Amino acid sequence: MKRVNVGLMGMGTLGTGSYKILDMNRETIAKNSGCDIRFKRILERDTTRDRGIEVPMDLFTQDPEEIFNDPEIDIVIEVLGGIEPASTFMLEAMRHGKHVITANKAAIAADYDTFINTAKENNVEFRFEASVGGGIPILNAITTVLGANQFTEILGILNGTTNYILTKMTEYGLSYDTALQEAKEKGFAEPDPTADVEGHDVANKVSVLMALAFDTYIHPDNIPTIGITGITPEAIEEAKHENCVIKLIGKAKKNEDGSLEYSVAPMKLSKDHPLASVSNEFNAIYITGNAVDELMFYGKGAGGFPTGSALMGDVIEIAKKIRMEDK
Amino acid sequence: MKRVNVGLMGMGTLGTGSYKILDMNRETIAKNSGCDIRFKRILERDTTRDRGIEVPMDLFTQDPEEIFNDPEIDIVIEVLGGIEPASTFMLEAMRHGKHVITANKAAIAADYDTFINTAKENNVEFRFEASVGGGIPILNAITTVLGANQFTEILGILNGTTNYILTKMTEYGLSYDTALQEAKEKGFAEPDPTADVEGHDVANKVSVLMALAFDTYIHPDNIPTIGITGITPEAIEEAKHENCVIKLIGKAKKNEDGSLEYSVAPMKLSKDHPLASVSNEFNAIYITGNAVDELMFYGKGAGGFPTGSALMGDVIEIAKKIRMEDK
Repeated sequence: MKRVNVGLMGMGTLGTGSYKILDMNRETIAKNSGCDIRFKRILERDTTRDRGIEVPMDLFTQDPEEIFNDPEIDIVIEVLGGIEPASTFMLEAMRHGKHVITANKAAIAADYDTFINTAKENNVEFRFEASVGGGIPILNAITTVLGANQFTEILGILNGTTNYILTKMTEYGLSYDTALQEAKEKGFAEPDPTADVEGHDVANKVSVLMALAFDTYIHPDNIPTIGITGITPEAIEEAKHENCVIKLIGKAKKNEDGSLEYSVAPMKLSKDHPLASVSNEFNAIYITGNAVDELMFYGKGAGGFPTGSALMGDVIEIAKKIRMEDK
Repeated sequence: MKRVNVGLMGMGTLGTGSYKILDMNRETIAKNSGCDIRFKRILERDTTRDRGIEVPMDLFTQDPEEIFNDPEIDIVIEVLGGIEPASTFMLEAMRHGKHVITANKAAIAADYDTFINTAKENNVEFRFEASVGGGIPILNAITTVLGANQFTEILGILNGTTNYILTKMTEYGLSYDTALQEAKEKGFAEPDPTADVEGHDVANKVSVLMALAFDTYIHPDNIPTIGITGITPEAIEEAKHENCVIKLIGKAKKNEDGSLEYSVAPMKLSKDHPLASVSNEFNAIYITGNAVDELMFYGKGAGGFPTGSALMGDVIEIAKKIRMEDK
């Protein structure tokens, strides 16, 4: 069986999730990829933390060059987070002929064309299913079996933290501050939740979705973005009286004249809308194509296992290609 | 640009939908496949019906051999429906080296292994995204980017006719007979609705889903199947009082000991369940994997354009492979 080696950059929640999935589903992954997939090197400073799984100490390195320069490493998974040094590392991995997989929407959205072009120039794959909607396989659908469609609209609940906060405000009449506090306690919000509650995380995801669905890259700074910090219990109550709910929606629309509209903002949705019942930390993407009409994809938008499912799914798809080209 | 020729068997709703999608989205399909995809021959007796699009008369044939024996035809789309002669035609096309795409769940479910083995023996692709959930890209997700999962459960609303009838019974307190009549008038039920209302159509789809998600083929005759003809307005009213709705659910479950449970039957679902708000003619598949956790895919389960989206999506995926192998 063809051996495929992965270099993992980052052993936090997502790296650990991916590592555990390969351990837990080794046979299934071998059957589905036709390859013997292994983690060969892990870039991570914290080698001693209890991750709930034993990781051989000799896998760890603190030197990214040990991944770039290892000719046996086929694929690099980047889950360091943050724009730098993650972006530099991904581009460097591509220049060393490694296929690159990432969950890093901030990095992709900040410099989409550079990633795509560098991958092309070096004849490597660049996959990022995990960057939008966690485990929800929306990007692969857009780029493969929905390829006979011209997409007209995308509406997404793309951030679990803000959806959790809005759900609790709606269900229990909580204030924003109280709901945020609860989200922090439950682990659904970061100690510094700015990127989530101000909508920047969603803007990154809208940028990635538009690049794939509309073949147009818009920098997230150019996407009008309003978060949820101004949402009051009164506004939510008023929406209820109109049989609506308030959701933070990432929106991208292609008009008939080809012009694009895009935004991140709280929206009032009728309770009949398929997105209205997407609650708590769940994410969903509602997408319309001129052939398929309306579709919705729903699932967990974060977490080590759901996001690891997307990362390892990308590994499997690349491993299949490596095996085919090897024949 | 690589030319890829398609032979179309059947020019009813699905064949016409596929033909129109290629006409409407020709540029998008060329960009996404990298190929110039054309319909080269259409097996169909009715050459004069108004289909809302002009089809060159010389495409039509009444002789399937003209498709099998045309060396320029790369892909055959079978949308004749019914088990025979569709199955014989598909197998014959494979033996002539054609890739085969179908929406025909009855044919696939009746003899799954023969199709898979014949495709393998002849080194051709056999794709059937359109056979389950119409335009919803569930099968491709299961067989590609969800490949790092062991699936544990599938619950599906897999038949638009019965979901429409149950929705109308629930919303307006209609009797089964009245709701069926309305579904017929709106074009959501066939003149003979037996295969739908007795659950046989759903059983076929459960068989296809299990073959892919659990790697186990179960003939639909062996799937315990109850339709919706016995559902009374009283039963629906009672469910409402328990804050539930009644849905016709195709279910497949893999227990921890590896044993499988499967059935088609009306089920009471809590209104909080993501499937509970799937109404009218819509379909949805709720699937759980041990990495990704819960996912739901929602969309139109029938109709020329949504199902055509899935058929043409499969054409694009095969065209990409043809182009790669051509290099």
